[in-house]
Amino acid sequence: MPVNAVGRFIPEELGGRKLVPFKGAFKSKPSGYKGRTKISYHKPGKSKIKRSIEDAIKATGLKSGMTISFHHQLRNGDWIINMVMDKIAKMGIRNLTLGSRALFPVHKPLIDHIKKGVITRIESSMNGPVGAAVGQGAMLPNLAVLRSHGGRGRAIQADDLHIDVTFLGASEADELGNCNGVHGKSAFGPLGPAWVDYQFADKVVIITDNLVPYPATPISIPGTHVDYVVQIDALGDPGGILFGTTQITRSPARLLIADYVVEFLRSSELLKDGFSFQAGAGGISLAVTKFLGDYMRDENITGSFAVGGSTKFVTDMLEEGTIRKVLDAQCFDTTAINSLRDNPDHQEISSDIFGNPHTKGCVTHVIDAAFLGATEVDTDFNVNVVTHSDGMLLHGIGGHADAAAGAKITFIAMPLFRKRIPVIRDKVTTVVAPGETIDVVVTERGIAINPRRKDLIKKLKDRKDLPITTIKKLKQEAEDLCGKPEPPQLTDEIVAYVEYRDGTVIDTIKKVKA
Amino acid sequence: MPVNAVGRFIPEELGGRKLVPFKGAFKSKPSGYKGRTKISYHKPGKSKIKRSIEDAIKATGLKSGMTISFHHQLRNGDWIINMVMDKIAKMGIRNLTLGSRALFPVHKPLIDHIKKGVITRIESSMNGPVGAAVGQGAMLPNLAVLRSHGGRGRAIQADDLHIDVTFLGASEADELGNCNGVHGKSAFGPLGPAWVDYQFADKVVIITDNLVPYPATPISIPGTHVDYVVQIDALGDPGGILFGTTQITRSPARLLIADYVVEFLRSSELLKDGFSFQAGAGGISLAVTKFLGDYMRDENITGSFAVGGSTKFVTDMLEEGTIRKVLDAQCFDTTAINSLRDNPDHQEISSDIFGNPHTKGCVTHVIDAAFLGATEVDTDFNVNVVTHSDGMLLHGIGGHADAAAGAKITFIAMPLFRKRIPVIRDKVTTVVAPGETIDVVVTERGIAINPRRKDLIKKLKDRKDLPITTIKKLKQEAEDLCGKPEPPQLTDEIVAYVEYRDGTVIDTIKKVKA
Repeated sequence: MPVNAVGRFIPEELGGRKLVPFKGAFKSKPSGYKGRTKISYHKPGKSKIKRSIEDAIKATGLKSGMTISFHHQLRNGDWIINMVMDKIAKMGIRNLTLGSRALFPVHKPLIDHIKKGVITRIESSMNGPVGAAVGQGAMLPNLAVLRSHGGRGRAIQADDLHIDVTFLGASEADELGNCNGVHGKSAFGPLGPAWVDYQFADKVVIITDNLVPYPATPISIPGTHVDYVVQIDALGDPGGILFGTTQITRSPARLLIADYVVEFLRSSELLKDGFSFQAGAGGISLAVTKFLGDYMRDENITGSFAVGGSTKFVTDMLEEGTIRKVLDAQCFDTTAINSLRDNPDHQEISSDIFGNPHTKGCVTHVIDAAFLGATEVDTDFNVNVVTHSDGMLLHGIGGHADAAAGAKITFIAMPLFRKRIPVIRDKVTTVVAPGETIDVVVTERGIAINPRRKDLIKKLKDRKDLPITTIKKLKQEAEDLCGKPEPPQLTDEIVAYVEYRDGTVIDTIKKVKA
Repeated sequence: MPVNAVGRFIPEELGGRKLVPFKGAFKSKPSGYKGRTKISYHKPGKSKIKRSIEDAIKATGLKSGMTISFHHQLRNGDWIINMVMDKIAKMGIRNLTLGSRALFPVHKPLIDHIKKGVITRIESSMNGPVGAAVGQGAMLPNLAVLRSHGGRGRAIQADDLHIDVTFLGASEADELGNCNGVHGKSAFGPLGPAWVDYQFADKVVIITDNLVPYPATPISIPGTHVDYVVQIDALGDPGGILFGTTQITRSPARLLIADYVVEFLRSSELLKDGFSFQAGAGGISLAVTKFLGDYMRDENITGSFAVGGSTKFVTDMLEEGTIRKVLDAQCFDTTAINSLRDNPDHQEISSDIFGNPHTKGCVTHVIDAAFLGATEVDTDFNVNVVTHSDGMLLHGIGGHADAAAGAKITFIAMPLFRKRIPVIRDKVTTVVAPGETIDVVVTERGIAINPRRKDLIKKLKDRKDLPITTIKKLKQEAEDLCGKPEPPQLTDEIVAYVEYRDGTVIDTIKKVKA
């Protein structure tokens, strides 16, 4: 088993696939061709409308052993995945690969499909119980593959993940399948993250609760690529889109972290006209966005754009002219959804445009700053966002690794410990973003600059108002306060692996002991 | 030489390619895969900006024998094709296939490149002198291939026309190549017709006279697919977009034709809420659009959408709510360009979405009515739009064959004779749209319904206000008035062939005698 560039042992083969060990954030150059797609035909006048999800599944020719996918735009409010999987299970189809973008706690019923062999492989982010079950071995001997948004785009494009049938929810669609996510009672925002699915899947099913007269516009997904359209009562619970923290933190310690990030940024020479950033939807990220907006407005700085999950805090900046554009692959609140619908400077983008490294240039490769979180960071600045320190697989990667790799400065903003467990470790439980892509770790008790960034260390050395320290001292301080954390209790069985955005393998995830 | 379904002899092979004879408008079902495209990579931070067109050409690795393409959105105001071809010629590159969308009179300098062997094959519509020169044998023994908009999309998608390098003008672009055609001094409207070029070409060069800070939005072509960006002083003459008739005809005879079309349509049961149509930019088409809009407004009919080249007459209908949407692949005037930029119900579409038959459903397959012109029609209702009766190759196909094939009712609206030459013939000089796709020929002296449309004949038999007659009687009337027209003076040498939208060959074009 070779050791990869972040010191992890990667099996040469796993689940019948040869793995290529991670070599460095930009060390693997792609070659070859994109996956081929079949030339299609639709007999004019023939209806694409299927009366039920079951009829649509039958029409696609879905068979045991195939791969299906869904988008995750409705997040924890999504009812489509459960509905479709229930029908598939009842139809006796087994041994499917679930190649979704992400799963949420609402998708807990999938655990039953895993146990019954309906789903035997998952290539998807998993937030919550499905990940926990997979981490506890529920799918063994079969594996899960975790990818970032850009990495998923790459994998589908390269046919590493070939999708036989994709089922895509749309909040507005017409009878030919032209559709979008900005109109209708279940509006969720961009469908861009599903573009790679419709472009490369053999069969495309659009599921909508809002079938409108042709043509539905804006056309996010064109009917030229849609096989069937199904109308149902409701895509899900729009409230569930707001899953996760979408409120600014009220914790004084976390507000302090956000304040440190913005203060640090002021010394970096990036925070000037044309500044661009990746914003997340966590409590600290929202506070950073808010403080950043306040600072830029006060200083008359006009930023270039924000990318990533969009929120009211970002669209407020757009409305007031503090930034010129928003590039959007995921809306986290209703204000953002309405902004995408109404503001021409709010642009829908795909996962490829967002962060696929095997394109002629993606957005995350040109951003100035990324404000990211972590479940753990280690003294080599490697970052974990998928497992907790107890080894439990509970989160997806999102755009984390994509933004970290591309941003001129990447911040990990996080408290020094959670529930009295230190989050800076000698070795993170799972490496998701390599330390070479992380520049600054900001906690309420100190700020550690990656030693690779001598420029930043030099620039910040006179900022007496910022608690600049080293990652090792931060780790020690946490352990002095909370004690050394227990190592996770893991078996030797691999339940999943983390594919870096370029298709190499950066880490494996072991089954947690029962 | 087999005879195809419209009675034309098609060689089994021509210019080294096997030809498949036309079998019928919807008889050929596609199989196989779309053309493969290479997986790309762009080193973050590396500039795509090239200082000159020459530098960009060099960077693409363009070599003799390759295929290049351009879009035609600037129409007769385009300076890009001539600029790029001049540089290519000076660099000593020869034997190129020009796979453009369309050429206009402004591109007359290409004739020199043809004569010097820089261009040895053309797969493009040709309006004016380049077509005339090709028709007179200037490129022999090499050939031209003529396709409709949808047919071109099909050919590129199927890799029948593989584009090595595409040079695409954009009226606004950023340094990564994200671009559009709606902002800037050279705004021309949709870039959708070039989507198939950027999606399938090996190398993509964006040429702009308006380089803006990243990100340029709306993103019509994404930087993920762009290799190089070149800034020049001006893309062309925006006034040249208005090439061709973009004014309503003032001829009483032609106004009468337009009036007959709308009157006829009233009997067809299509002209009700939800009505959709393809509108052209010829003088009669504009009059039809105007009269149609007036009628629909007076009768409180709310149409569904208009598609095709958009004009003020169409966008006026959109503004006042007479139609709900405009689907746009080409703007013909400034009002339409501004509407595409500002009105969210005015949707940019690609050639594939417009009329590619080898997709899962295109717009032209769902339109109610198409209002089209012709250079000639024959007694089998076959239509010619590319050559004149003297055999001169002077026009492109545009979306003609795509709209005719799909529309529930296709009108050919034209005067019975031009310059005292009858335009209804026993056999058209060149078949472009097969008679099976044409329903009604409307002239100022009579209206002929295709005998296949027994339903229309029955419905219209009591309309004493319309001069319903037969195509043969119309032909006779024209010949009685003007005399029987001379047959074109043609040699046996084939200079071009017309590929039907499904990839089969519907006709060949012979060299005209000098």
